[in-house]
Amino acid sequence: MISWKNLDTLAAYGKLAAEARVNLADAMSGEGGAARVAKYSVPMAGGLSYNFAAKAVDDAILADLQALADEAQLTEKYGALLDGEIINTGEKRRVLHQLTRGQQGGSVVVDGVDKRAFYVAQQKKAADFAAKVHSGEIANAAGEKFTTVVQIGIGGSDLGPRAMYLALEQWAKQQGTLKMEARFISNVDPDDAASVLKSIDVAHALFVLVSKSGTTLETLTNEAFVKDALKGAGLDPSKHMVAVTSETSPLAKSSDYLAAFFMDDFIGGRYSSTSCVGGAVLSLAFGADVFARFLDGAAKADATAKNADILKNPALLDALIGVYERNVLGWPATAVLPYSQALSRFPAHLQQLDMESNGKSVNRFGEPVNYVTGPVIFGEPGTNGQHSFYQLLHQGTDIIPLQFVGFRENQAGMDVDIQGSTSQQKLCANVAAQIMAFACGKADENPNKAFAGGRPSSIIVGDQLTPEALGALLSHFENKVMFQGFCWNVNSFDQEGVQLGKVLAKRVLAHDTDGALKAYSDLLNI
Amino acid sequence: MISWKNLDTLAAYGKLAAEARVNLADAMSGEGGAARVAKYSVPMAGGLSYNFAAKAVDDAILADLQALADEAQLTEKYGALLDGEIINTGEKRRVLHQLTRGQQGGSVVVDGVDKRAFYVAQQKKAADFAAKVHSGEIANAAGEKFTTVVQIGIGGSDLGPRAMYLALEQWAKQQGTLKMEARFISNVDPDDAASVLKSIDVAHALFVLVSKSGTTLETLTNEAFVKDALKGAGLDPSKHMVAVTSETSPLAKSSDYLAAFFMDDFIGGRYSSTSCVGGAVLSLAFGADVFARFLDGAAKADATAKNADILKNPALLDALIGVYERNVLGWPATAVLPYSQALSRFPAHLQQLDMESNGKSVNRFGEPVNYVTGPVIFGEPGTNGQHSFYQLLHQGTDIIPLQFVGFRENQAGMDVDIQGSTSQQKLCANVAAQIMAFACGKADENPNKAFAGGRPSSIIVGDQLTPEALGALLSHFENKVMFQGFCWNVNSFDQEGVQLGKVLAKRVLAHDTDGALKAYSDLLNI
Repeated sequence: MISWKNLDTLAAYGKLAAEARVNLADAMSGEGGAARVAKYSVPMAGGLSYNFAAKAVDDAILADLQALADEAQLTEKYGALLDGEIINTGEKRRVLHQLTRGQQGGSVVVDGVDKRAFYVAQQKKAADFAAKVHSGEIANAAGEKFTTVVQIGIGGSDLGPRAMYLALEQWAKQQGTLKMEARFISNVDPDDAASVLKSIDVAHALFVLVSKSGTTLETLTNEAFVKDALKGAGLDPSKHMVAVTSETSPLAKSSDYLAAFFMDDFIGGRYSSTSCVGGAVLSLAFGADVFARFLDGAAKADATAKNADILKNPALLDALIGVYERNVLGWPATAVLPYSQALSRFPAHLQQLDMESNGKSVNRFGEPVNYVTGPVIFGEPGTNGQHSFYQLLHQGTDIIPLQFVGFRENQAGMDVDIQGSTSQQKLCANVAAQIMAFACGKADENPNKAFAGGRPSSIIVGDQLTPEALGALLSHFENKVMFQGFCWNVNSFDQEGVQLGKVLAKRVLAHDTDGALKAYSDLLNI
Repeated sequence: MISWKNLDTLAAYGKLAAEARVNLADAMSGEGGAARVAKYSVPMAGGLSYNFAAKAVDDAILADLQALADEAQLTEKYGALLDGEIINTGEKRRVLHQLTRGQQGGSVVVDGVDKRAFYVAQQKKAADFAAKVHSGEIANAAGEKFTTVVQIGIGGSDLGPRAMYLALEQWAKQQGTLKMEARFISNVDPDDAASVLKSIDVAHALFVLVSKSGTTLETLTNEAFVKDALKGAGLDPSKHMVAVTSETSPLAKSSDYLAAFFMDDFIGGRYSSTSCVGGAVLSLAFGADVFARFLDGAAKADATAKNADILKNPALLDALIGVYERNVLGWPATAVLPYSQALSRFPAHLQQLDMESNGKSVNRFGEPVNYVTGPVIFGEPGTNGQHSFYQLLHQGTDIIPLQFVGFRENQAGMDVDIQGSTSQQKLCANVAAQIMAFACGKADENPNKAFAGGRPSSIIVGDQLTPEALGALLSHFENKVMFQGFCWNVNSFDQEGVQLGKVLAKRVLAHDTDGALKAYSDLLNI
């Protein structure tokens, strides 16, 4: 029987909080450090591994974390989610995004529909559509192939799919499997759509309109913007546009679209990259076979996340270490630092995934919690960040835990040997160096040149960022965030915090304001 | 006489810390809120204004902040910097980036050279060069005009210039003054350069190599990468490349470049956007007259920053409010939220500017400080962020102060009217709504739908993001960061925290490692 309890009511949390702290600089020095790198590594799906040697944990703390996982019933709760129980209690919804990539729990039937079969059918529909676009069977009015796909969506309909596209664009070019270039329009700022439209050939562009409800103001506005541009170019918008939406949305049956692909209320926007929200644009860009490989990596990582042993479940372990850093050690933020240019927007996706899921102050019963929940998440690719904000990470007054990601091989297959090493070797050398610089620091008689060390990091390492590796990486963080949500006893699947702004914006546009809201409206000439 | 003292030794800081807190939700409610919006506004250069009505301050706190500014001699220190005193004490250097855009203090002569005249001469050289490129007098081997400019640089040689280019790209297109499209290569990850090179026509591309020292490993590696590509296309690299560097660098007199434009050790990378580091690429992209307008906006903001009255000096006021939030109220991060797609990478620039300048644990004498210094800085454009991390900002357990930026008009001049309002109106309505939602919150009998409010923000507002407005915005944040550095008594102009990683990376590449560093090197197959 699952019971939902606040973190600070758990005996294992009390024991964890009382456990002796690890002196990371000492632990990572000398041969003991090398032994930790060998020992504190967990295999992941997609050929990746999660190495946590440079985290401020030891066997005693790991035992406490295992006890916490057990007492908080984290994998049982994950199992209940996989079985389709109503885990999103606030909105009384199941949480089914994992079914878009596999069947990890029992079959989930809602209103007579097997949900796994439903998601697979939608994928198949998108795959068939993409194949027809690639073959030219579906073409523009002049009978010419579409060459560009433009996703119109915001939030989860933008950040995840965009990050995934960028993650595989160079890989696909190198593999010869880039079928269409993808672009993205998200912001209601008209300069966003204008910029994208000016940079493409609209006559050969296919637009993917993504809105689960069919009512997202930014997305409908940008749809109208794009339709104006298509009409202005003498084109029929309905021949250039598909919809990704729910079956009950106003977009579902509209003749305004060449096709519609469906998701439903059981897939939250920030967890929707493996649904048709990501599937349509990624299948069009790379081909459905590449998208299937991405799903496969995610499914394997989901399976790994079922393991109750934290040393065999990297998402669970990562989650628990994060809770330890946040609640026991009191650190307010986490930086995500991929040493891969292809992951340039992956931190922005994780920022939504994590902060929107766990940035909550009440538990799943609506009661205020007495502890901090989700941290601030930010990051940029290395080595760029080294020449930017790493100064604060090394020598600032706050400790910021770090999450590195690195690959042994690049994607594009182009490199150059300078000063005896390739760019790829330099990239990898830098991430290795940074981990040690953060962990161990360096004494110096000039305090301004001294590094205190004791700044923890983990690294996810793989051979190359392939579709499978990307799927595993995505799933890892989704599951990590959900496990942390279980620890904090919050509902990671609603986002009531976005509602008030929407309501007030409507009042501003209706000129139904007074006081300071009217004053700001006047200031902005609305 | 200037004296450098730690923040916690100042009487005014003690008074500030003891001052009664403001209940922001109450203060911003009703007609009192409207009065604050009208009253708590300071004009800025470039037609902008800084409105701090939704910050948790009142007249008593403002008086304390003024006293703190006076006791800490903030504008005197700024004046000393403008006069060319050795403000970067750790590296024993002057701090002269303001001289690239104006003469705010006395003339600064170093080794017989008037530095203002020197920077102006370099700008003139870059302007003349750009004009010849635009006219075709300087062209490729086939006598054809260059159409694309590609900046090769990292950190300050990348983030600022890239953010400034993106900020004006759509404006320039709309004005008909976009002379060349700009691209940027920064990361040592070879996939970065490969991606850019695959997306351009190298035969018509001019590369701007930016490295002050002429020894930045990433930049020299990417230069070699680009030269390989040019040679591979049968082109002479020396006819496609210019250098921005110091006069003493190995790049300065090389025949490998069509031209060299100079900066010097008195301009830190993160403060170099108005030097030739930004000037070459921006003059090539937009024309030197546009760059001059950008400099003019920055110069006017620099002049404003000399005012000792905090209510007439928005950079100083912004800095002091930030110190109050960081040190008295104890908030660990600040979000920068521009409601302008053109400012999509402005937060990344500010992240470097702020975190690299003030992420320090020792004061300018090398003594540890007993208080927190620079916060984590992150951000994304609105309305995108609303559909992402704003959930945590509204309902998370930590309070994150917010810095909004908004403009009444868009840049591209394209818009669409949907549901009775334009996209631009929707954009502006949203920022007004967010400010009030954060400040006042909303009671609800369902705690999950309740907003506590009391989450402070400021907004910088302008008519349009023009070159002048952008220059003023850039200068505002540079001066804000420097004023905060003075408050914290840190040296905002060095970055010793980046050194250790460089040293260790060299050891990895030389296979001169043991212990955990060797283990990580093996893990990454170096």
